[in-house]
Amino acid sequence: MIVVLTGGTGGAKFVDGLRRLLPAEELTIIVNTGDDHEWWGLYVSPDVDSIVYVLADLLSSERGWGVRGDTFHCLQAMKELGEEAWFSVGDRDLATHLLRTQLLSRGQTLSEATSYIAEKLDVRSRILPMSDMRVETRIDTPAGDLSFEEYFVKRWYQDPVNSVRFSGASEAEPAPGVVDAIASAQAVLIAPSNPVTSIGPILAVPGVREALQTTPAKVVAVSPIIGSAAVSGPAANLMTAQGLPVSIAGIAKAYEDFLDILIADDSDSAAARDINIGGVTVHCTDIMMRDTEDKRRIARAALALACPEILSEPAAEFR
Amino acid sequence: MIVVLTGGTGGAKFVDGLRRLLPAEELTIIVNTGDDHEWWGLYVSPDVDSIVYVLADLLSSERGWGVRGDTFHCLQAMKELGEEAWFSVGDRDLATHLLRTQLLSRGQTLSEATSYIAEKLDVRSRILPMSDMRVETRIDTPAGDLSFEEYFVKRWYQDPVNSVRFSGASEAEPAPGVVDAIASAQAVLIAPSNPVTSIGPILAVPGVREALQTTPAKVVAVSPIIGSAAVSGPAANLMTAQGLPVSIAGIAKAYEDFLDILIADDSDSAAARDINIGGVTVHCTDIMMRDTEDKRRIARAALALACPEILSEPAAEFR
Repeated sequence: MIVVLTGGTGGAKFVDGLRRLLPAEELTIIVNTGDDHEWWGLYVSPDVDSIVYVLADLLSSERGWGVRGDTFHCLQAMKELGEEAWFSVGDRDLATHLLRTQLLSRGQTLSEATSYIAEKLDVRSRILPMSDMRVETRIDTPAGDLSFEEYFVKRWYQDPVNSVRFSGASEAEPAPGVVDAIASAQAVLIAPSNPVTSIGPILAVPGVREALQTTPAKVVAVSPIIGSAAVSGPAANLMTAQGLPVSIAGIAKAYEDFLDILIADDSDSAAARDINIGGVTVHCTDIMMRDTEDKRRIARAALALACPEILSEPAAEFR
Repeated sequence: MIVVLTGGTGGAKFVDGLRRLLPAEELTIIVNTGDDHEWWGLYVSPDVDSIVYVLADLLSSERGWGVRGDTFHCLQAMKELGEEAWFSVGDRDLATHLLRTQLLSRGQTLSEATSYIAEKLDVRSRILPMSDMRVETRIDTPAGDLSFEEYFVKRWYQDPVNSVRFSGASEAEPAPGVVDAIASAQAVLIAPSNPVTSIGPILAVPGVREALQTTPAKVVAVSPIIGSAAVSGPAANLMTAQGLPVSIAGIAKAYEDFLDILIADDSDSAAARDINIGGVTVHCTDIMMRDTEDKRRIARAALALACPEILSEPAAEFR
């Protein structure tokens, strides 16, 4: 079993590459839920949805979130009714939120609701929310204490960031299967996701970091940073706020207690030679995911470093 | 103030005629909520919505319900997720249900939520749900005890009907303003709605029938029956189940304790002469509402009989 920790659009792209290389049943995805929020009275889990959609081959690759070809008529009607409309929910996407909200209100856990929805969409990989308990990423800014979606979507990550915290994390437990999946994995891959607000919440759930430290599997991360900038999104500001250098060294430092191999961009090969953090080895390649071929190539690079035997198996191409 | 009791598609058509003849502020609509039901976890009030939409000039005149030009992408996605999809909720329509559900969950009454939504859509007439308490129309059939929407929409009103009851009615109270509106009206109009399941639930709310009996205003109904058949929908079977003849005599009988004038179709003029129920006078005209001009004409006929002075006022055409 290959286990991936992920969140955000970069993570979904990486998973899109992996699903093309591995049998669905050999993939377990542990997903950030720190961005989850209530919207129009519905429970929305943006990173879980992106992973469900990418594995169901429904994700909009243009937007990087939501359902391909979706319309936004309900959103427009909500705007006309005077409701908040800064979080774009598509009409097809809305069905997922409506169904999840109902399942949760009937007493299902987030894990159970996620499995139910994934199964209905013929997803055969395992998708595990990091926790069934509420862990909320909060961004402290001069404009106030914001939820991640307020900071990221509503305010376009323009606010200076004082600090980031994961409200509820200390009392949370990993969702069923999370720790076992890491402990028994053939390889653990950390997607090129924001280390603070996509991977950070997963690591903040008690027990996850320890599982990563003790798993016999290799832990391989793909850097979301090239040079001194994030490939996309607010990772740079958030890393700075957390005291991490905005560089591949910062990524290595964020994961130093469990990381074996960091895959960085070719353009960072000089920086890679200077890294001397824990037992981390840096491997350089072209890490920009522009198209499907890139996603597949980078997923293959990660698998080749983490678990080369899986790629030597027959029929290692699925789409 | 002109007060209308209504439910169903015939009622919405009649209100569409009235809004073209009267200043919005002079119209109060008392609406059936016996069809209200939970759908995908949302509180849906079909007859209230139809009246909000018709007054906001948003109602689909092709379908007679929902929003003109609406799409059904969320419904399709729900179907693909394996959820029930027999109740057609459009994507724009969904915004109304989402907003109402949120307003109710924040403690607003149905009246308050209705006023809020109507105001956001620039509706200036008063829309009063019959009650803020739950009164549920239940249809007893050989296939079981069905909600109105199950009987009407899901099962295409094909089941024989044993009886109809209004669950919760005896403990319900009229919504604020309902009794006062009837008591102080210049005229009360009963729309050409199903007398059993559209007007019946309103009359089942304690106090409404008494208000109609005692109001000094004329009470004028437009028949939903022509000959021995309903203009549309399941009224015939439902009237039979309630012991009412399927004819204009049955309509007169349903309303005999408060009705002054029944407007029936020209084709029923012979039957009209035989009616000798309470103090009911029957007036015949062409009552089929095929287009806007028909709706306006029939609304005008009702107003001319109930309250002719309102039509002699200047600027009596609004669209």
